Amino acid sequence: MNRKVNIAVIGTGRMGSVHVANLVRHIPQANLAAICDIRLEVAQAVAQDLGISRVEQNYHELLADPSIEAVLIATSTNTHARIIQDAAAAGKHIFCEKPLALELEDVDQALAAVENAHVKLQVGFNRRFDKSFQKVHEIVESGQIGNPCILRITNRDPELPAMEFLRVSGGMFLDMSIHDFDMARFQVGEVEEVYAIGNVLIEPGLNDFGDLDTTIITLKFANGAIGAIDNSRQAVYGYDQRLEVFCTEGTAQADNETETTIRKGNRDGFLAAKLPYFFMQRYAPCYIEEVRTFIECVRDDRPTPVTGRDGRMAVVIGHAAWKSFHEQRPVKITEFDA
Amino acid sequence: MNRKVNIAVIGTGRMGSVHVANLVRHIPQANLAAICDIRLEVAQAVAQDLGISRVEQNYHELLADPSIEAVLIATSTNTHARIIQDAAAAGKHIFCEKPLALELEDVDQALAAVENAHVKLQVGFNRRFDKSFQKVHEIVESGQIGNPCILRITNRDPELPAMEFLRVSGGMFLDMSIHDFDMARFQVGEVEEVYAIGNVLIEPGLNDFGDLDTTIITLKFANGAIGAIDNSRQAVYGYDQRLEVFCTEGTAQADNETETTIRKGNRDGFLAAKLPYFFMQRYAPCYIEEVRTFIECVRDDRPTPVTGRDGRMAVVIGHAAWKSFHEQRPVKITEFDA
Amino acid sequence: MNRKVNIAVIGTGRMGSVHVANLVRHIPQANLAAICDIRLEVAQAVAQDLGISRVEQNYHELLADPSIEAVLIATSTNTHARIIQDAAAAGKHIFCEKPLALELEDVDQALAAVENAHVKLQVGFNRRFDKSFQKVHEIVESGQIGNPCILRITNRDPELPAMEFLRVSGGMFLDMSIHDFDMARFQVGEVEEVYAIGNVLIEPGLNDFGDLDTTIITLKFANGAIGAIDNSRQAVYGYDQRLEVFCTEGTAQADNETETTIRKGNRDGFLAAKLPYFFMQRYAPCYIEEVRTFIECVRDDRPTPVTGRDGRMAVVIGHAAWKSFHEQRPVKITEFDA
Amino acid sequence: MNRKVNIAVIGTGRMGSVHVANLVRHIPQANLAAICDIRLEVAQAVAQDLGISRVEQNYHELLADPSIEAVLIATSTNTHARIIQDAAAAGKHIFCEKPLALELEDVDQALAAVENAHVKLQVGFNRRFDKSFQKVHEIVESGQIGNPCILRITNRDPELPAMEFLRVSGGMFLDMSIHDFDMARFQVGEVEEVYAIGNVLIEPGLNDFGDLDTTIITLKFANGAIGAIDNSRQAVYGYDQRLEVFCTEGTAQADNETETTIRKGNRDGFLAAKLPYFFMQRYAPCYIEEVRTFIECVRDDRPTPVTGRDGRMAVVIGHAAWKSFHEQRPVKITEFDA
Repeated sequence: MNRKVNIAVIGTGRMGSVHVANLVRHIPQANLAAICDIRLEVAQAVAQDLGISRVEQNYHELLADPSIEAVLIATSTNTHARIIQDAAAAGKHIFCEKPLALELEDVDQALAAVENAHVKLQVGFNRRFDKSFQKVHEIVESGQIGNPCILRITNRDPELPAMEFLRVSGGMFLDMSIHDFDMARFQVGEVEEVYAIGNVLIEPGLNDFGDLDTTIITLKFANGAIGAIDNSRQAVYGYDQRLEVFCTEGTAQADNETETTIRKGNRDGFLAAKLPYFFMQRYAPCYIEEVRTFIECVRDDRPTPVTGRDGRMAVVIGHAAWKSFHEQRPVKITEFDA
Repeated sequence: MNRKVNIAVIGTGRMGSVHVANLVRHIPQANLAAICDIRLEVAQAVAQDLGISRVEQNYHELLADPSIEAVLIATSTNTHARIIQDAAAAGKHIFCEKPLALELEDVDQALAAVENAHVKLQVGFNRRFDKSFQKVHEIVESGQIGNPCILRITNRDPELPAMEFLRVSGGMFLDMSIHDFDMARFQVGEVEEVYAIGNVLIEPGLNDFGDLDTTIITLKFANGAIGAIDNSRQAVYGYDQRLEVFCTEGTAQADNETETTIRKGNRDGFLAAKLPYFFMQRYAPCYIEEVRTFIECVRDDRPTPVTGRDGRMAVVIGHAAWKSFHEQRPVKITEFDA
Repeated sequence: MNRKVNIAVIGTGRMGSVHVANLVRHIPQANLAAICDIRLEVAQAVAQDLGISRVEQNYHELLADPSIEAVLIATSTNTHARIIQDAAAAGKHIFCEKPLALELEDVDQALAAVENAHVKLQVGFNRRFDKSFQKVHEIVESGQIGNPCILRITNRDPELPAMEFLRVSGGMFLDMSIHDFDMARFQVGEVEEVYAIGNVLIEPGLNDFGDLDTTIITLKFANGAIGAIDNSRQAVYGYDQRLEVFCTEGTAQADNETETTIRKGNRDGFLAAKLPYFFMQRYAPCYIEEVRTFIECVRDDRPTPVTGRDGRMAVVIGHAAWKSFHEQRPVKITEFDA
Repeated sequence: MNRKVNIAVIGTGRMGSVHVANLVRHIPQANLAAICDIRLEVAQAVAQDLGISRVEQNYHELLADPSIEAVLIATSTNTHARIIQDAAAAGKHIFCEKPLALELEDVDQALAAVENAHVKLQVGFNRRFDKSFQKVHEIVESGQIGNPCILRITNRDPELPAMEFLRVSGGMFLDMSIHDFDMARFQVGEVEEVYAIGNVLIEPGLNDFGDLDTTIITLKFANGAIGAIDNSRQAVYGYDQRLEVFCTEGTAQADNETETTIRKGNRDGFLAAKLPYFFMQRYAPCYIEEVRTFIECVRDDRPTPVTGRDGRMAVVIGHAAWKSFHEQRPVKITEFDA
């Protein structure tokens, strides 16, 4: 069955335009029928660049088109839940950027709509599609190194995003650590309890709205394993993305990629390259793979690999982390999800 | 000056189809006007895949079209020289896959035609566009680690190509080491003398036509530096591509890329990933960058970074290596190029 | 001033005999006057092996000898505090293995005795003398990579010690993590708050006496930095000893040493060596350096680099960790040390 | 059989004093009966440092002592052959530093004396006792990665020795590369042909006596494998000691050891430690192991692992390399050893 899936992209900002380009260049399984942005001129510029013929300002136009089977939502977070509901109601399959929403109520309404409409939903946890993290997953799941004991994730951005973004981002635990919460579930399983500490050590302006730039979150998993995630908003040597699943009979470690493989040796020692600058570079192949997989799931009517429940659980853990931080105590997931 | 350069691709086999796809997807500075292959159905299949409207069987049709400014030649080696001459006569700028030709006479006729026609010629030594090798070049050229003393190149293929290809390939020194000869000149400078040894240790069938599968070539450079290149047709752990320029005040080393960054630790030790399978994977970004650069040189009327002379010198050194091997003595480049 | 310091060793079991051999072979600044063990035959065997002429069963004999300036205490933990008090009363300078004692009252009595007697005390936190950890300390302290933000320590034993030892060891946090608590203070500074989680995932027998084999401890430091330590009693790939101090302007990472530097590449990938088996191999040079430094401090009347207070704080943090684990909440150091 | 072997050390300069200290501290299987140096005060200083009771100026005194079973010769190279002959005549087993002699005639006379006297001889090729190089040997010899194809050795000193030493050293190929020639035979087998190139790129003063500071030697082995050795007298980043045996079914690589395991990451990239300064640091454990092994061979009447023939062949290859360099052609070993 080699038919192409008709898809439209809603939201053509930073992430959206990456998805648009990937659909055009790298995902022959899809036919990009149209793109849409409330800022029409933004969508038009993208369309011109990539030779896309149909551009809309109002996504309802796309939802009304019966030839479009699926939508990719890459608008700002506060619009995700509403668009999901509309798209589900229109019977479209949905790929939505993370997070589904910052508020659990919104997430739940969106998921209910998806369930009622019997459409597919995949959430954009791109890191699940990284070949190194997938290999770790494969090794751990195979049982060849025993049972998981300790998960360690280091996730550090190269530099802070703009303050205006940070103010509406949901803060460290819902904007940045949310990737790690999903990765933790992907690698080790369900989380039962969270404890979070953090501080403002880089950008004092974060204190104005109670955000953090340096955090550690410890996790207890349902299978007895434990984990620690450390996050920072500023790693001057590049985008630091490391992962280890330590098990009873061995360990699986994913190290950083680097800009080049070169080393310069001189009287000071050996200087190796910095890490890739940021997620656009580091995870470029993942953005392709996640959408390709979604398209194939739609085409072949298979379940998507990152579900609405996955999207929801990461938000739940994010809220638990904030609650833990504010109340200075470990917080059980059941406090949110009894 | 942002106009697009009109280019046609001649030869759409393995390498040609890579260039076609890159031109379509990754090089917006070019307009791919047409593609051409003597096996028309091969070109048609590529065209259909990538939505290219014009397909020819006879490259003279393309050369006759005044709207086409440049051609990319990716046909079999024995046709390069003739097509270069024809394209030059038609006033087209030329990007040609390596080697220019196996016989020096053919190379020289092609270069004379290019010179007479005042067109640009770039030879497809893709490795010069690798970011790690470029960084080594940059460090060495800057003088920050002193003067070059020792060049070491390891270049080992994962497995032998087909026997039918090998019979017409020019043999190890002209087919495989030729990349290293160009790299040696790129990193350290002109070569003055060559000594080559080798053996058949992997595929006995090579003895039938006097080829080798395991070789070492030592080089003396005009600037006094010395070098050693080792080549093999079969490295079971992947495509082994390493380089070091050791200098009076330090060293610059390019190590291999790997399939993933993961390590699995258990009672046996730590198992890391194999190397990327082969050149298509390892040097994928270089194939884009070399053609993008060529296109920009045409557009902006700048000299190309890999010249006809570069293409010629690599062939000369290849012949010197074969002569050295057969006569079991060091061979000076001036024996070919007085 | 090149005189040799007269020292006696009390306790010649596993650690004691290492110190005895080091004093004889590697520390010419010392004169090993005598050794002593309550199990006389154990001390005699060590003495014979190394050509030591004086052996005692009762350490009071050594304390009574005015020619002996210093003692090294390597007896079982439950005797440390008493011997320290006796040695201090006798005016001897003291090097004592860690921990000073399991109970804080015992520690405090020992420290009071040391203070009253104006003798020197150094605690055997050998890892402070590791060249890699010292280099991290140097880099961090110099300020060249800014201020500490995140400390990460991985400390995993290759296999569990004997059950009879574990029963009296003080448990994970006082026996094993105590090294990490000292390292944390050495690298980043004073600890203010501790949170500990853990589980029994390897040796179910530990449940009998409430010990753990897999733990994570998070730390808040007085300077605002935060940290995470992960510990395991069983790493099948060897003794895992890693450390990172991540700072505002960079990071300093100490990686594991390995048994050899070799890598074997084949169709499976690249297999590198396991880690050194255990502390005796991994930290062998530190055991020499810590005692050499102590001897020189005695000889030159300088303060010791690891003080009684350092020994005490590690025990305090260990108790705080146990309290945190049992009460499932973060515990402030001031709860112990108001 | 646990008796101690009575040994005397002749020559207590730089290398000799290392052996003396190792015998005293680390080789309980030996009893160091006496040491000897023509510069009596040098031997006396060493003896005092290490508590050795018997010191001689004239080695004949030691040879005349029937209680001494073995001698370790660490005098200047030009005296090796004569002392070996004298020691063999006196029935002593012999450990001799490399090279046996610079002239083949001297080597042959020494070996004849050893054979006639039926004493054991071990040559000080310390690198054969390096745990990483031994592991490579083990892997290659086991056949698990197929048959050897390519040997690569990088051997670069951190800085030039004193000019007065260099004048009598035998030059690069007999002083420095000789270690690599032995290593090549240890790893891959007998050498059949040598080709050597080199230059003076670091210390122009070497031109005065025809020595080199930068060389590459290619080797053909009897089993069909080929090899390349590169040597330099000055690597500013430390003592560079790398080795690879590339085989039909894989590869075994020994990488450098480093001063520490730390990496400092900042805006420039990641800075790792230099290599250990020189052979005294890098190969410290080998100096112990080679002599311990010799002692045990004497004690248990077993053949030594590095024989007189091994010592001779390395000298032969060194002469072949010089001849190749001077005559600018490959030189067969049979030219020396018909």
